[in-house]
Amino acid sequence: MAIADAITGKAPGRTEAVAAEIRRRVAARILTAGEKLPSIRSFARTMQVSPSTVVEAYDRLVAEGLIASRPGSGFSVCGAVPAAVLRDAAPALDRAIDPLWVSRQSLDAEPDMLRPGCGWLPADWMPQAALRRALRALAHANAPVLSDYGPTRGSRDLRRLLARQFAMEGIEAGAEQILLTMSGTQSIDLVCRFLLQPGDAVLVDDPCYFNFQAVLHTHGARIIGVPYTPAGPDLELFAGLVAAHRPRLYVTNSALHNPTGATLSPKGAHQILTIAAAHGLTIVEDEIFADFEPEPSVRLAALDGLCRVIRIGSFSKTLSASARCGYVVARPELVEGLVDLQVATQFGGPSPVAAELVLRTLGDGSYRKHLAHLRGRLAKRRREVLGQLEGLGIRPWTLPRGGFYLWCRLPDGRDAAEVAKAALRERVVLAPGNVFSVGRSAPDFMRFNVAQMTPEVLPVLGRALR
Amino acid sequence: MAIADAITGKAPGRTEAVAAEIRRRVAARILTAGEKLPSIRSFARTMQVSPSTVVEAYDRLVAEGLIASRPGSGFSVCGAVPAAVLRDAAPALDRAIDPLWVSRQSLDAEPDMLRPGCGWLPADWMPQAALRRALRALAHANAPVLSDYGPTRGSRDLRRLLARQFAMEGIEAGAEQILLTMSGTQSIDLVCRFLLQPGDAVLVDDPCYFNFQAVLHTHGARIIGVPYTPAGPDLELFAGLVAAHRPRLYVTNSALHNPTGATLSPKGAHQILTIAAAHGLTIVEDEIFADFEPEPSVRLAALDGLCRVIRIGSFSKTLSASARCGYVVARPELVEGLVDLQVATQFGGPSPVAAELVLRTLGDGSYRKHLAHLRGRLAKRRREVLGQLEGLGIRPWTLPRGGFYLWCRLPDGRDAAEVAKAALRERVVLAPGNVFSVGRSAPDFMRFNVAQMTPEVLPVLGRALR
Repeated sequence: MAIADAITGKAPGRTEAVAAEIRRRVAARILTAGEKLPSIRSFARTMQVSPSTVVEAYDRLVAEGLIASRPGSGFSVCGAVPAAVLRDAAPALDRAIDPLWVSRQSLDAEPDMLRPGCGWLPADWMPQAALRRALRALAHANAPVLSDYGPTRGSRDLRRLLARQFAMEGIEAGAEQILLTMSGTQSIDLVCRFLLQPGDAVLVDDPCYFNFQAVLHTHGARIIGVPYTPAGPDLELFAGLVAAHRPRLYVTNSALHNPTGATLSPKGAHQILTIAAAHGLTIVEDEIFADFEPEPSVRLAALDGLCRVIRIGSFSKTLSASARCGYVVARPELVEGLVDLQVATQFGGPSPVAAELVLRTLGDGSYRKHLAHLRGRLAKRRREVLGQLEGLGIRPWTLPRGGFYLWCRLPDGRDAAEVAKAALRERVVLAPGNVFSVGRSAPDFMRFNVAQMTPEVLPVLGRALR
Repeated sequence: MAIADAITGKAPGRTEAVAAEIRRRVAARILTAGEKLPSIRSFARTMQVSPSTVVEAYDRLVAEGLIASRPGSGFSVCGAVPAAVLRDAAPALDRAIDPLWVSRQSLDAEPDMLRPGCGWLPADWMPQAALRRALRALAHANAPVLSDYGPTRGSRDLRRLLARQFAMEGIEAGAEQILLTMSGTQSIDLVCRFLLQPGDAVLVDDPCYFNFQAVLHTHGARIIGVPYTPAGPDLELFAGLVAAHRPRLYVTNSALHNPTGATLSPKGAHQILTIAAAHGLTIVEDEIFADFEPEPSVRLAALDGLCRVIRIGSFSKTLSASARCGYVVARPELVEGLVDLQVATQFGGPSPVAAELVLRTLGDGSYRKHLAHLRGRLAKRRREVLGQLEGLGIRPWTLPRGGFYLWCRLPDGRDAAEVAKAALRERVVLAPGNVFSVGRSAPDFMRFNVAQMTPEVLPVLGRALR
């Protein structure tokens, strides 16, 4: 661990050289378990460094667990570090392709693997400069921001900023109607924990974001898929399924639907709300891709006024997934219940440090330009990748208005799961269609992330198709 | 929002002055909804600032939702901000005193309120300098750390560091057996979701940390309390309750038990494990206060070798609660299941930014000294507060070896819930005994956090006792 150098600003080599010499002596059994280390003063002379450099090196070795300090008796070598300490899990190549397959393979991919199936932008597409400025500013934040749990709903300043932005979209919600969470997924999970009983029916689009199925599965929900069209769910089937199954929830993306990139039509939005009102259906509208839209589309939450619509979202796609900050906006009494549930199951609200990082990045003058630039860059990438895929006979189901997904049909009814397995053997993670489909109706579809389609992917994809 | 100044390093007043002038014109209806703002160049002349300062001010107002930019047509004023945007929830003074009462009142307390009932140290007792150094260093981290989801188990470097520390405590666990989470509570919640069915019996100490009850309640567990003694649970009753109820889990703190500050004896630890083995009981050992111990006490996880013990913990008490980082250590196949569950319900692992912040702070040379200093400071505070409380006739149930809690009996059988309600009217949050007691066997007990016992608390407590 060479992390202390960046912190102290000292010549990086010196502390590390002292630590390395002790590590070498332990490895060579010149120093053995239980033995005392040289005193700080004498080892400083030996290494020709200042005593404070030796103190830092020893502190570093304490943090690593190699040595321990004993009151009044200096430092001594700990027992040998068991090899187990370094053991870590490798991605499982033989895992069954289920709704968790793409997440696990993408998140735990080793650095040299390619991930055109994943659901995020490459790190260098994200607003790095603004994030770094925000971190430097955070180093000067008030002490409670850096160390306290913070309020149960999360940062008041960030919630007020969000409330203003929602007002611009026609959604009137007080800051107390916003609950910050760790992620869009956690928002859905909290809502499900609060509203669902095992066995309750829940309607999702077919295809839909695979993790909707994964999270609903943990709640014992009866998951029902409604076929999705380029203008939203098939409305006739939607009405029939709601009447027949009386689902408690409908979980959907209105803007830039995942995986298709399609957008709900105004007519569809109105009809869905009418059907929902007639049958007591609550709708979870996941707006995680809304910032990628060139022009805002219709919002169920705005039409409905947050009466039976719960809006959720996060900053993971355009700002930082590492910060881990999402939100729920809903009726006040529902939010009050969700707050209790979040305290019981997480203690406290989401990270005040993360909320401050998001707030400062959103408030950075460069962020709005970053979004505009991102939309332009993605439009260009979508066109390029469409051309490349068509060269392999892979055709888009619809042409998205924005975002980074292309939902495509493979040529000649190829089995996407087999293609994904073949690609994984060449260290490329793809997203085969059926992980998105409750009815397993998309065996020959694939979702491509255009921002992750580096030149190395195409030949692998070509071979995997054969 | 005056956040951009800290970021840009510009004279703080200038951008804010320009933004304030626009806000003033909107408030005075000199500019009305839909109206165009002065051009950047002309307003720079008016305000005698540079055009870039106006650009920044306008960007800030866009982020606030007061104005919007339209491609090709400059900036215009948005519709009036509804008053609702500023509405926020106030702490409810009349809320029933249940296991969530202390959390909600403490977390959402306004800044002028005093919180001797809360479960954390004041911000200025935390390692602020090390946290600030870590944030500055984080501003130079690799891009993926700042923007990616990170691996499903969380930062590999932090898990390896933890594995080394566990090895020093005699717990052999590979880095793959560690799952980073958002908090100790989330660790327990994940374990419960994975192992419990509604109706399962779960054993807890009586008294125990109130949030154990809150989280178990969300799982529909049948919560059974075992009377706690200054050396751990009453072993005879423990054996009887396990045999009678066949609980699936026993959730406890071995070191510096919350709320009593007591510590499990070696004999108790061995007997508990023997009983657990005979009845297939799994134990969740919450080590959140372990770093406050002057000398390490016996660990169930170490005796058992993580066979039927699941260890959980977090960095919220000694490093930062704001970072939101905890962990679970358990058998490999259990961790594998918890990873799937965490991906399904949170997507991805815990925040890579938070893990890096924790890793860098732990690795900072000053952190070990911070802990040593903290233990000394708390020992002194415990003595002082004991004296003050005894002056009011409040006596400790036991004398803790470390930590910041004193579990005390009020004089003359006073009702602690009534005392807490009276103190809350004077803006002091206390922690009445029965919120910790499944059997409601502690009506005249109170938990005091010695680090939060400022001089203003005593007279309020004195009045509330009368």
